[in-house]
Amino acid sequence: MKNNIVVFDTTLRDGAQAEGISFSVEDKIKITLALDKMGVTYVEAGNPGSNPKDLEYFKRMKEIQLKHARLTAFGSTRRAGIPVKDDKNLQSLLKANTKDVAIFGKSWDFHVTDIIKTSLDENLSMIQDTIAYLKNKGKNIIFDAEHFFDGYKNNQEYAMKTLKAAVDGGAEWLVLCDTNGGFFPLEIFEITKHVVDSFPVKVGIHCHNDGGMAVANTISAVEAGAQQVQGTFLGFGERCGNANLSTVIPNLQLKRQKSCILGNQLQNLTSTARYIAEIANVSINEREPYIGNCAFSHKGGMHIDGVNKAHHSFEHVNPTLVGNERRFLMSEVSGRSTVLSEIRKVDPSITKESDEAQRIIDLLKEYEHVGYQFEGAEATVELLIRKKLGKYKPFFQLKYYKIIGEDQASNEYSSTAYIKVNVNNEDEISIAEGNGPVNALDKALRKALEVFYPELKDVHLTDYKVRVLDTNDATAATVRVLIESTDGVNVWNTVGVSTDIIKASWIALVDSIEYKLLKDIEQKKEAFL
Amino acid sequence: MKNNIVVFDTTLRDGAQAEGISFSVEDKIKITLALDKMGVTYVEAGNPGSNPKDLEYFKRMKEIQLKHARLTAFGSTRRAGIPVKDDKNLQSLLKANTKDVAIFGKSWDFHVTDIIKTSLDENLSMIQDTIAYLKNKGKNIIFDAEHFFDGYKNNQEYAMKTLKAAVDGGAEWLVLCDTNGGFFPLEIFEITKHVVDSFPVKVGIHCHNDGGMAVANTISAVEAGAQQVQGTFLGFGERCGNANLSTVIPNLQLKRQKSCILGNQLQNLTSTARYIAEIANVSINEREPYIGNCAFSHKGGMHIDGVNKAHHSFEHVNPTLVGNERRFLMSEVSGRSTVLSEIRKVDPSITKESDEAQRIIDLLKEYEHVGYQFEGAEATVELLIRKKLGKYKPFFQLKYYKIIGEDQASNEYSSTAYIKVNVNNEDEISIAEGNGPVNALDKALRKALEVFYPELKDVHLTDYKVRVLDTNDATAATVRVLIESTDGVNVWNTVGVSTDIIKASWIALVDSIEYKLLKDIEQKKEAFL
Repeated sequence: MKNNIVVFDTTLRDGAQAEGISFSVEDKIKITLALDKMGVTYVEAGNPGSNPKDLEYFKRMKEIQLKHARLTAFGSTRRAGIPVKDDKNLQSLLKANTKDVAIFGKSWDFHVTDIIKTSLDENLSMIQDTIAYLKNKGKNIIFDAEHFFDGYKNNQEYAMKTLKAAVDGGAEWLVLCDTNGGFFPLEIFEITKHVVDSFPVKVGIHCHNDGGMAVANTISAVEAGAQQVQGTFLGFGERCGNANLSTVIPNLQLKRQKSCILGNQLQNLTSTARYIAEIANVSINEREPYIGNCAFSHKGGMHIDGVNKAHHSFEHVNPTLVGNERRFLMSEVSGRSTVLSEIRKVDPSITKESDEAQRIIDLLKEYEHVGYQFEGAEATVELLIRKKLGKYKPFFQLKYYKIIGEDQASNEYSSTAYIKVNVNNEDEISIAEGNGPVNALDKALRKALEVFYPELKDVHLTDYKVRVLDTNDATAATVRVLIESTDGVNVWNTVGVSTDIIKASWIALVDSIEYKLLKDIEQKKEAFL
Repeated sequence: MKNNIVVFDTTLRDGAQAEGISFSVEDKIKITLALDKMGVTYVEAGNPGSNPKDLEYFKRMKEIQLKHARLTAFGSTRRAGIPVKDDKNLQSLLKANTKDVAIFGKSWDFHVTDIIKTSLDENLSMIQDTIAYLKNKGKNIIFDAEHFFDGYKNNQEYAMKTLKAAVDGGAEWLVLCDTNGGFFPLEIFEITKHVVDSFPVKVGIHCHNDGGMAVANTISAVEAGAQQVQGTFLGFGERCGNANLSTVIPNLQLKRQKSCILGNQLQNLTSTARYIAEIANVSINEREPYIGNCAFSHKGGMHIDGVNKAHHSFEHVNPTLVGNERRFLMSEVSGRSTVLSEIRKVDPSITKESDEAQRIIDLLKEYEHVGYQFEGAEATVELLIRKKLGKYKPFFQLKYYKIIGEDQASNEYSSTAYIKVNVNNEDEISIAEGNGPVNALDKALRKALEVFYPELKDVHLTDYKVRVLDTNDATAATVRVLIESTDGVNVWNTVGVSTDIIKASWIALVDSIEYKLLKDIEQKKEAFL
């Protein structure tokens, strides 16, 4: 038990208080199931009384059996001056019908007197009464001591009394909250240690990231004896967010041998994080520890050289342990070895010193200069290398395309594209309507090419991203388009850059189609051999 | 002095090793000047021998007088087995002609034997020789002990010997590097304290963020006696990045009364960070502590209520201290008070309970539901409220627009837009070419409207952002466009959402123009009163 740390995820509650986050009931259920699969112990999901969405969610969850996680409702201590049974919020909390309930109360004397404007003694009764009442209803209570660290600094004796009131009420856990997120790890360590040594119940930690130290503060509290870590799986929450559990969990499991989630689930950390990000419709910061796209990307030449000799020379852990990948980036600081390994996939006979290698490196640099980024667009890199090496034959020739866009009135679609292509000396003209010019063009191109290449029917785009470069040139700015495609078996990525979003999309679309056709031919050859 | 912490910024060197970063010489000069203005002590800018860009940069910088910052070149200890004077990299380092030089050397025995493959003794000589040679040339040496903490853990005695070699060579500073970024604050504290107590020279700290604790580790080192903090101003660097100085600096200045930058410059922290982000062409994470767009944004109803009573109830510092702003977000969890304050700007007679207030809240929710986000698009919110309250008269009527896009051949532009508008029963038709459909449409619209409203000539767009929502619908996905406009005096933001990027841009463009015309009228009225 000493080496087990209980993970309490509040993505659905504190996470929903983040700017830009708005979950549907369906979203909340999907995230609950993903957290359950990882083996998170508590999933805090809101209060059925606070809004109809939460009510609906708890209703739906009654029909779903979780394997591991304990669904937890969240609410406040009773209001001042009334009995618990008359408090509407607490009554609605009971409607969630969860065995576990998180109750937050005030631990900072200033908040009691100046924000909720009641007496210090009444606040203690509010904490104790509320917990005793819920305990009596058969609930397990997690007490969140809001602003505990600020309270401790301002009036240590009173802050400790609020914890005592919770213990006297029957709380199972005392969770110390750095609600404003401004504390430092050494302070957190000392104060948490004092609490751990003072009470007979288990202690948890809930940190916000306003000083950029939520993860470190959480770790420090664990080192001081805390046994529960609260946070959100991707770190988002009110203001700068909560402690990022996707960082806290591997830090504790890999560096301190403390078990947080199910035994074999750490290797699903990256995919789970990306899945939750997709549902929450947020993009994960590329530099996010462990799960970010750059977390194990190496750019400096000496770093790449080192990692090739021994991965731990420039990696704190092996990326496979958290389901992430090592990547070597192509750039002016990375030297030629990364590019060379890509070239040799196309033509193994090419060596470091050959002219071809240099010409390809120069070509990629030119492309980078105008705004291309090849990281995450391997299909485009392969096509560029093939073209330069003469190992490429175009699958079609564009005669022209024209797009007509107009303000939508009677028409279902706002754009119409027509396109003429030539394949093996045969012309094909097609027309398609779409939501916007790129969608219309995409449809028209496929329609024309499927006549010659029916296998393209299996291909569809799974992601389409637009990045406006030099944004201060406004609508005349350069645009980078990234496209992810799949044929149901493989996934590949392509990139296009232009000052015209249609042209940038066109480049990436064509690369996507040509890559698919190329791989099909390669596969047929292999099957033939 | 005890309360002064020396800031060493390596945005131009370690920062350039981040994925997606590529600085031009011009970029590097701009960032150097911005850091100088803030009062950063050291600006590490690369090695003239490593690439021609750095060479050009140091050449250009010779003509520029910095007010405060000390330009610092960066290089490695000499290679094994050769005298310092024969080492090409070190000779090219001298070409930078800086008074201050940062030299990194190996402190982890494993790296010496397995990566650079030399003897432990030779490595000590490499450190001492290199520093003594440069010292003799009149340089001040900052010694970066690469992988110091890993080395200390693996072979404490040897790691300490590498520092001694640097001191014997004449280093002014010993900088302890957590190169792989995996250490925890309490370890950093203890090891740094041991070093501070063991050597007569000043100690610095250089942390990477692979465990999400670079800022906390940096702070812990300062608490153990380190006097120099290394990092990058926005936190980007190799892999997960370096300690983020825009977090470290306010943490130390505001919470520990340690002076890091010029007295009055902390209030420019946010604007400087955003300026550097613009040059580096990266977007600042919204939840970034102190400088992020959400750092002082409040969404939960109780938080908003608390901050209205006393800002420190839910803010660890006052946002004005770092030049950031407090924001109250409109959303289902924030309740009506935020929306109400926006409504009352338009019509102060409307109260909380009025039907109009409810109707506007419902309207905004509908818009949010289809993908609008009003955070950061105040002009659009005001226009929506005016329209709903009948306090709005359109400035023009669109008859139609048509856009023709085609594959660029002979034409300079790829898109042509023509548009017909009606103002006060007078039609105007105009045509314009552009880089892409949105640019053409933007130009044509302005051309037509300037006939009636010449004041629009002052307006131009300063930012244009595209966010593809539900990205898995690919090119048919919903698109949100955010536009920032200025007339040279004021700045305002508008938003549009549609499945068609042209339509989404059109909505935001029209709002931008109408908002400008509306504000001009209001101003004239005020001047008249």
